Amino acid sequence: LSANFFGPQKNTYIRVSLPAVCFVWQIAMVVLFGVFIRYDEESDEKGWNEFKKSHNITSNIENDFYFRYPSFQDVHVMIFVGFGFLMTFLKRYSFGGVGFNFLIAAFGLQWALLMQGWFHALDPVTGKITIGIESLINADFCCAGSLIAYGALLGKVSPVQLMVVTLFGVTLFAVEEYIILDLFHVNAGGAMVIHTFGGYYGLAISWVLYRPNLNLSKRLNGSVYHSDLFAMIGALFLWMFWPSFNSAITNHGAGQHRTVINTYLALASCVLTTFAISSMSQKKGKLDMVHIQNASLAAGVAMGTAAELMITPYGSIIVGFCCGIISTFGYLYVTPFLEKKLKLQDTCGIHNLHAVPGMLGGFVGAIVAATATEEIYGKEGLIETFDLTGKFENRTMSTQGGYQAAGTCVAIAFGLVGGVCVGFILRFPIWGDPADDFCFDDEAYWELPEDEETIPPVLEYNNHMVNKHHDT
Amino acid sequence: LSANFFGPQKNTYIRVSLPAVCFVWQIAMVVLFGVFIRYDEESDEKGWNEFKKSHNITSNIENDFYFRYPSFQDVHVMIFVGFGFLMTFLKRYSFGGVGFNFLIAAFGLQWALLMQGWFHALDPVTGKITIGIESLINADFCCAGSLIAYGALLGKVSPVQLMVVTLFGVTLFAVEEYIILDLFHVNAGGAMVIHTFGGYYGLAISWVLYRPNLNLSKRLNGSVYHSDLFAMIGALFLWMFWPSFNSAITNHGAGQHRTVINTYLALASCVLTTFAISSMSQKKGKLDMVHIQNASLAAGVAMGTAAELMITPYGSIIVGFCCGIISTFGYLYVTPFLEKKLKLQDTCGIHNLHAVPGMLGGFVGAIVAATATEEIYGKEGLIETFDLTGKFENRTMSTQGGYQAAGTCVAIAFGLVGGVCVGFILRFPIWGDPADDFCFDDEAYWELPEDEETIPPVLEYNNHMVNKHHDT
Amino acid sequence: LSANFFGPQKNTYIRVSLPAVCFVWQIAMVVLFGVFIRYDEESDEKGWNEFKKSHNITSNIENDFYFRYPSFQDVHVMIFVGFGFLMTFLKRYSFGGVGFNFLIAAFGLQWALLMQGWFHALDPVTGKITIGIESLINADFCCAGSLIAYGALLGKVSPVQLMVVTLFGVTLFAVEEYIILDLFHVNAGGAMVIHTFGGYYGLAISWVLYRPNLNLSKRLNGSVYHSDLFAMIGALFLWMFWPSFNSAITNHGAGQHRTVINTYLALASCVLTTFAISSMSQKKGKLDMVHIQNASLAAGVAMGTAAELMITPYGSIIVGFCCGIISTFGYLYVTPFLEKKLKLQDTCGIHNLHAVPGMLGGFVGAIVAATATEEIYGKEGLIETFDLTGKFENRTMSTQGGYQAAGTCVAIAFGLVGGVCVGFILRFPIWGDPADDFCFDDEAYWELPEDEETIPPVLEYNNHMVNKHHDT
Repeated sequence: LSANFFGPQKNTYIRVSLPAVCFVWQIAMVVLFGVFIRYDEESDEKGWNEFKKSHNITSNIENDFYFRYPSFQDVHVMIFVGFGFLMTFLKRYSFGGVGFNFLIAAFGLQWALLMQGWFHALDPVTGKITIGIESLINADFCCAGSLIAYGALLGKVSPVQLMVVTLFGVTLFAVEEYIILDLFHVNAGGAMVIHTFGGYYGLAISWVLYRPNLNLSKRLNGSVYHSDLFAMIGALFLWMFWPSFNSAITNHGAGQHRTVINTYLALASCVLTTFAISSMSQKKGKLDMVHIQNASLAAGVAMGTAAELMITPYGSIIVGFCCGIISTFGYLYVTPFLEKKLKLQDTCGIHNLHAVPGMLGGFVGAIVAATATEEIYGKEGLIETFDLTGKFENRTMSTQGGYQAAGTCVAIAFGLVGGVCVGFILRFPIWGDPADDFCFDDEAYWELPEDEETIPPVLEYNNHMVNKHHDT
Repeated sequence: LSANFFGPQKNTYIRVSLPAVCFVWQIAMVVLFGVFIRYDEESDEKGWNEFKKSHNITSNIENDFYFRYPSFQDVHVMIFVGFGFLMTFLKRYSFGGVGFNFLIAAFGLQWALLMQGWFHALDPVTGKITIGIESLINADFCCAGSLIAYGALLGKVSPVQLMVVTLFGVTLFAVEEYIILDLFHVNAGGAMVIHTFGGYYGLAISWVLYRPNLNLSKRLNGSVYHSDLFAMIGALFLWMFWPSFNSAITNHGAGQHRTVINTYLALASCVLTTFAISSMSQKKGKLDMVHIQNASLAAGVAMGTAAELMITPYGSIIVGFCCGIISTFGYLYVTPFLEKKLKLQDTCGIHNLHAVPGMLGGFVGAIVAATATEEIYGKEGLIETFDLTGKFENRTMSTQGGYQAAGTCVAIAFGLVGGVCVGFILRFPIWGDPADDFCFDDEAYWELPEDEETIPPVLEYNNHMVNKHHDT
Repeated sequence: LSANFFGPQKNTYIRVSLPAVCFVWQIAMVVLFGVFIRYDEESDEKGWNEFKKSHNITSNIENDFYFRYPSFQDVHVMIFVGFGFLMTFLKRYSFGGVGFNFLIAAFGLQWALLMQGWFHALDPVTGKITIGIESLINADFCCAGSLIAYGALLGKVSPVQLMVVTLFGVTLFAVEEYIILDLFHVNAGGAMVIHTFGGYYGLAISWVLYRPNLNLSKRLNGSVYHSDLFAMIGALFLWMFWPSFNSAITNHGAGQHRTVINTYLALASCVLTTFAISSMSQKKGKLDMVHIQNASLAAGVAMGTAAELMITPYGSIIVGFCCGIISTFGYLYVTPFLEKKLKLQDTCGIHNLHAVPGMLGGFVGAIVAATATEEIYGKEGLIETFDLTGKFENRTMSTQGGYQAAGTCVAIAFGLVGGVCVGFILRFPIWGDPADDFCFDDEAYWELPEDEETIPPVLEYNNHMVNKHHDT
């Protein structure tokens, strides 16, 4: 796989391609939304008034909006500030980190509303998709898959390529989600559907786009003091709002309540083991910001499926405990190994933050589901939690556990196969990606301000020089 | 209009004036709150217990607090972090951007509670204003008008002048709001009442305060790498929470629900066209942070009125589509034109982010209102949405549309006339504003830390120098 | 008190101690959670279904989760981003500020769930503690005490010492809280339980750890331009979300509603007097970021108790008015005095932001409670607000006021005595704290990135040098 096979010369000129992609796709959104998308019965003025009458609802507070809006806004913050600022850690790619994240999430959520709508909310009679607050949350989730993939590609691709990554990422996401949630009837599959898929999707793309001479940009592939602080903003908003991420679309009442408790505990526990391993790994016990910013989040990923289940508070803490260790070890040993042996360059280490914890979370969910009993959940609770109605009425819990595990494998398969295909598309020499010695540099795609911060000492220097000249 | 007409010498000494204004106005607040402001029936201990009995309410969740508090906190973040950090983009005026925003918003919201109370919530019997969560949201909105105006003045005025801008800004706001919402009975006039007014108010003040020699401060009128990242924090929190901004005081139930969906979609669409135009406008297709930080928000402004209406999801996307184009073109061509031809210096480009999109939003709202039908809203929904009760019972929808358009004109008029008057007040040479060569500089009003970041190279330099001296 | 009594040599080696503490304590959490912690009836799947039936509840919206979750997330942001980023103001201790805050809060909240559970939620029959959303909020509050203490110690202690501070801080907190809330039956004691305790706890520790030669690190004990902006992120999130902090666990309905209004008003008022005093104190009236970041928050602390009571809107404004003055004076005169005369080094000035305003808030609460009447609250409201049931049925309001005041004294006593004891524990020479000339420096505990920002001018300098050499 030679990086120059498709074209030896690189040019970051995107003045035609980026506007073209943005305009064409946004116009497509206008047309498709015009044809397909309508308000659902809880957001439509007439529909809600009729819904209230037909369901004998007296108070507007019963509108799903009030159950989900606070969580939605938290998820929204995670998508744009969380993912965005987490990717500002590079010393000269912060604009690209937060800016391209903004662009592709804004496109992805529109395309997600359509893709997820066609699979889950298409009215067979009217041919319309109806959307409400839960659709917006799901659209944000769907974007997350592509944003995770961006983490592996950070600094090495053009914004046009990222739009392609997102177009296919959202499409693949909607299909695997349909298989896992609808066909397999898996419960709360966030860990696998979002993180496992997104992680392996990004890794597979990055593998195909391997750059043997990336060390030409080595000087820029690192952080500076303040860029690490910006990244901490992203990391903390992700960490704090992960309970909302996992609970945003779980069942009303005890379901959302329990999901929050479990995620909160797992995340807290994960922080301590992350600090411990990070400190152990350095000669003087010094901590590494890369670990703190990333590995401390792994527990949120790993609880993506089991958090709604009766995993118990100490079960959550144990999951967090293991995740902090596994993820930090990943940053210490697996990422360098992948780069050296598998030719896989993973800028943000999504392998350790999303791929592996997501897979782990899928299997934890399978185990907790397989061991669920009526004694713990109550008869009603068991049916409600796993939605064992209709044709799934007689599914046993061990079968359910099996399907949960199978769902994880589907997510991995979609990520890997989809990622390889998309990777080859991205190798056409038309996308404006940077040359190997021009990676991790905002100069490629942004009008950068002249950095006056560094001018005062130089000026002072010049003055000294002038004086010296006068002296001599 | 000579900048030196009122006084040729400038002095940024504010040790008397700023404390005096703060103390006098805050003491006035204490007195006026003592005379006028009381808890409303949903926040008063006794009142709420009686309200529950008289309205046959059994659950505390029916308190308006639970319908509005999450949105309130989002709006609060927009006012203080959103507006505040958006204005940190200048390389050496970040303290002033976020700090003075903090000061004037904290004053403005108190004065707004009084002004809006006198116009909308004064009990004719007791002579008291009662406040609840909706009053707090409205007070935050009212501040936004003056904070928008600050955007045009950023770096060129003293904090004392900003307090004056806010005092009159809030006062004018309350009057125009009374005319537009109460007399004209316009629906959800956020776009016009807040943004159109605030935009033209700031532009008119800035026009009167024109500084012909502002290029003396040119070296500081720009960003550095990290200040642009701080500004992205503000931009993203504004962008993410705009659905809450527009829905915070709309009708319970489907009203709030639909407002969020519409705003969310318009904002997403706006991002893509902003990136497209920004890239098209530069030789190599490079993106400009000014556009990304600002133009991508224009759709939120433009949806300020229509978002509650049944504009349809694709209608929202079309509005966003147009806003991104118009606003980015504004930054590219209109702001330089205004400065050159109209002698109007608009630091943050509020013309393109607030004034024009707000006006556009007012007219979009007028069109959507004029075309509202019972078929779409249902009879009950139409009455509820436009509050067609009492003396407005028989108003036709085309009349409603006309009033919506007229409201926009009122907002422009209040902004322009009010701004010119306030501008002339601000030209008295007593306010401590900076000289033309001392603008955009925190040095004027802040104790700045010695910037040790720049010291290491200098020290190193000196050491080298010393060595050189020893050598020679 | 010689700083070198326990050991003249300092070594910041923590490669054994930090991982050991993290692992041992986290494993203890797993075991203790396994033995004690269970879901409560509103988060347990079976429990909630039974609760709904037994309480005749038809809607899931009655779950306490929906009353408290938005406030919980705000509090969570305050703990991790608010406190964390407020402590990034030092030029070279930002990693330690936000990073160690993250570590100790993540540990503290787990330990708090246990400690608070044993005192307040231990089922005597099953021997289990049941937790729900209110427990999570209380755990976050409990952490806040130790995070406040960290403010006095910032830059002078090792992360291992901070873990010890937190272990004992949470323990002491739970005991004093039990005395104040349960035995004294004090209402809404946030100001005293959290802030007064946390403030004096930190001050007492810092007093015992006095470093006579701290001026050896003087060059790093200050801010730079951008670190002050990072601190503003923390300050503003604290300021904006303080209404949620105070209202998160107050009574449903009018209680939460009123708490928000009162806190919002007090904070706004406090900003103006802070700016006024800050400006008055400098020769040219220039503002000091230290005051703006800290003193403007004092009103939130001081309203920690009275905010739920019928203090009236203007009462709240008066409290804010006084707090801004007192706290800013504290930063100007008291902190330097404490350092010089009492040998008390208080890095963040928690004396002025937490200790004194908290004490003030305790006494304000006592006065407002003592003057509460049935006329104002209604009979029902008075009982509900002060929970005058069971053995407290006949407590008069003046007695209640006395207990509120007594509670404040208990908090001070616990803070001072506990802090002195913990301080002596921290003086053992085994904790890896930095030497006097190595304080306020992230170099001690963090792998720092090579700061490329400062390299360009140096390189340029070298080039010039080279040229000069060539010239000569």
